[in-house]
Amino acid sequence: MSNIQTTAPPHCTINGDRLNQKLAELAQIGALDDGGIKSSGVSRLAFTPADCQARQQVQVWMQAAGMTVRIDAAGNLIGRYPGRNAQLGALATGSHLDTVPVAGRYDGALGILAGIEVVQTLHEQHVQLQHPLEVIVFTDEETTLLGSKAMAGELISDPDAYQRNDSTDIQTCLATIGGNWAEIGTAQRTAEELVAFVELHVEQGGVLEQAQRQIGVVQGVVGQQRFRVKITGCPNHAGTTPMHLRQDALVAAAQVVLAVQRLATETPGEQVATVGSLTVAPNAVNIVPSDVVLTIDLRDLSQVHLQGLIVALEGELGAIAAQTQTQIEWAETLQIAPTLSTPLIMEAITAACDALGYSHLQLPSRAGHDTQVIGRFTQMGMIFVPSRGGISHAAAEYTSPEQCAQGANVLLQTLWRLDGLV
Amino acid sequence: MSNIQTTAPPHCTINGDRLNQKLAELAQIGALDDGGIKSSGVSRLAFTPADCQARQQVQVWMQAAGMTVRIDAAGNLIGRYPGRNAQLGALATGSHLDTVPVAGRYDGALGILAGIEVVQTLHEQHVQLQHPLEVIVFTDEETTLLGSKAMAGELISDPDAYQRNDSTDIQTCLATIGGNWAEIGTAQRTAEELVAFVELHVEQGGVLEQAQRQIGVVQGVVGQQRFRVKITGCPNHAGTTPMHLRQDALVAAAQVVLAVQRLATETPGEQVATVGSLTVAPNAVNIVPSDVVLTIDLRDLSQVHLQGLIVALEGELGAIAAQTQTQIEWAETLQIAPTLSTPLIMEAITAACDALGYSHLQLPSRAGHDTQVIGRFTQMGMIFVPSRGGISHAAAEYTSPEQCAQGANVLLQTLWRLDGLV
Repeated sequence: MSNIQTTAPPHCTINGDRLNQKLAELAQIGALDDGGIKSSGVSRLAFTPADCQARQQVQVWMQAAGMTVRIDAAGNLIGRYPGRNAQLGALATGSHLDTVPVAGRYDGALGILAGIEVVQTLHEQHVQLQHPLEVIVFTDEETTLLGSKAMAGELISDPDAYQRNDSTDIQTCLATIGGNWAEIGTAQRTAEELVAFVELHVEQGGVLEQAQRQIGVVQGVVGQQRFRVKITGCPNHAGTTPMHLRQDALVAAAQVVLAVQRLATETPGEQVATVGSLTVAPNAVNIVPSDVVLTIDLRDLSQVHLQGLIVALEGELGAIAAQTQTQIEWAETLQIAPTLSTPLIMEAITAACDALGYSHLQLPSRAGHDTQVIGRFTQMGMIFVPSRGGISHAAAEYTSPEQCAQGANVLLQTLWRLDGLV
Repeated sequence: MSNIQTTAPPHCTINGDRLNQKLAELAQIGALDDGGIKSSGVSRLAFTPADCQARQQVQVWMQAAGMTVRIDAAGNLIGRYPGRNAQLGALATGSHLDTVPVAGRYDGALGILAGIEVVQTLHEQHVQLQHPLEVIVFTDEETTLLGSKAMAGELISDPDAYQRNDSTDIQTCLATIGGNWAEIGTAQRTAEELVAFVELHVEQGGVLEQAQRQIGVVQGVVGQQRFRVKITGCPNHAGTTPMHLRQDALVAAAQVVLAVQRLATETPGEQVATVGSLTVAPNAVNIVPSDVVLTIDLRDLSQVHLQGLIVALEGELGAIAAQTQTQIEWAETLQIAPTLSTPLIMEAITAACDALGYSHLQLPSRAGHDTQVIGRFTQMGMIFVPSRGGISHAAAEYTSPEQCAQGANVLLQTLWRLDGLV
């Protein structure tokens, strides 16, 4: 590389048209066909031909942007742009290319393509940072977080735990994308190798849009606890059983739904709580319900606060069981600890926004991301751009071209600032 | 008939052993086989071979009790025991032999067999009432009330409305049991022909058992209104959507369930109200529910009171929709008007209990019966005996032999009293 500059000029900006052109091109891979009219939806499940095709396309773009590319044993696709100081660990960004079954075109894709655009911009301007810069496509974010977990050394050794829904084994899946289960331990990395990780992502919620801010400075990825609640009453004739002789499992369940709602809205804090699934038996118009199974999903940035909510909920469940003469059992089905953003990185993102004149606010990420896993072994931060209507994991997901470009510019400026700080 | 007496002696009682023997025999027809061990459950759906076999057996018993038997065009099996005054219309009793798919041995059967036992007792004692006495087996009580509706002239003319779940047409079904759809209008009867109808039935609820009373004097059969409620919110990510931006259809539905419960328990009266069926979409642990469909079933003896409840409920639904930012639509799916018992018949039943020394109380029937239909054109009343644990429409349905005999004795004494009153 000739004529290398030592610092990125503060006014250096990415090419928004090129970024959005790539977003549109990528969305054609796995594009959903909506009854003859092409929708903007995408379906690109991990390890499917569409996922493989997207990875190949991205590899070509990485190379064109000046990166060397390798695939680690976990199938993570890693583009690397050299730094000026060979002694330093890498700054990294990235996200994922796989999607849920019916997805939009921004979730994951924006983080990858913005990372490539940042490198391409530096490369075109003949700029190198002190640190090497990596753009990482993590393997299977949407179901197992396999790529980031392998990088954090968090995979369990039993490959059956990662078998796909269609019964394909993970060994075969990994081989398809250039990984190798037998060597997966080699994918693990350290904070020395990866000194900081910053991910740009669409918000997937409506906070930025409602607050009319351009950029979200993510405080961390919330912890999550899930429970399965089983309520047992007594089935009875809906005509002949007087109200006071009933043990109505659905009346108890309704109280649980509202207790969860009350806990989330009336407790100070920014927790969210959801009863998303509820099934009734025998579920007949003329039979008093005897059995209900429902799920509770709780999320918050503070583990201590989550624990407090759970203790309060336990008290509510006991009171509801006694009052409705039903039995209520509950079991934890998922527990993920919160991961907090590194203050230094939040400050760099904030400073980048201020330098670019973009309005911003701090908010937690209430959806899971690879960054949450990577943040367990190195410094991390996340940049959010608005999602129209808060819609995500749906064909209607939308972030405007300007918003995508703003996010990529914040990513560039953040990495440039971090280069001097970490 | 020789040596006929003119009045039944007040101390005349039925043969309880014979009645209970017949109940046990009848329960063998369509008996449920519970994994090799015979349960006490019965499955005898209308028009099935088991139903036909039961009707044949009952016909034999009717004839042995001194009745002539005919089958009307609606398939109603009518046993008739002559009266002393050929100018008078008949007193009648009866019930049904068909059952729900998994039933006990008392629902319907007790009313038929007690009616036969009453006639057999009179016949053995060489007693005739002034009025002819009929024992009626109504066709298909459990699904269409076809027999009693034909007798009340309430059938609609389209036979497709009575097609069975297995697609058999009603013409074929009726032919199987000796009826004739083409002539069904001839099954209609008048208050002159049938001056009063009294049905003995198991309570199917727990009121008598809880109150420790032997006999229930039924005030009438409650009216019933059913609604289908559709709640539309917005599907959203359970992590990324803050509580105040949600339109959670399940939170709205929980409020509806509790509003229905509150209305039924806190409004003065003996109404019952049930949300028996509720389904959630998309019903996933991590998605805020967007759609709920639920059913409401309301029953009360007073049509005016029912209307009041519905007006109150409508107000609640409007308030819930506004508060939860959801759309709530509701549609009536069933409306059956209450039928009140004839005071004269309630008095006769009460006097019969007092004469026999049986404790009693007045209560509504909250389940539907043929009597509800018959009561629309002639005088009617119902006698209840306790159901253990309030259980009904289940193999575990149970009324003791003594309770069955007590009910039959009250039926005998009631008919004897009515003979002098109507």
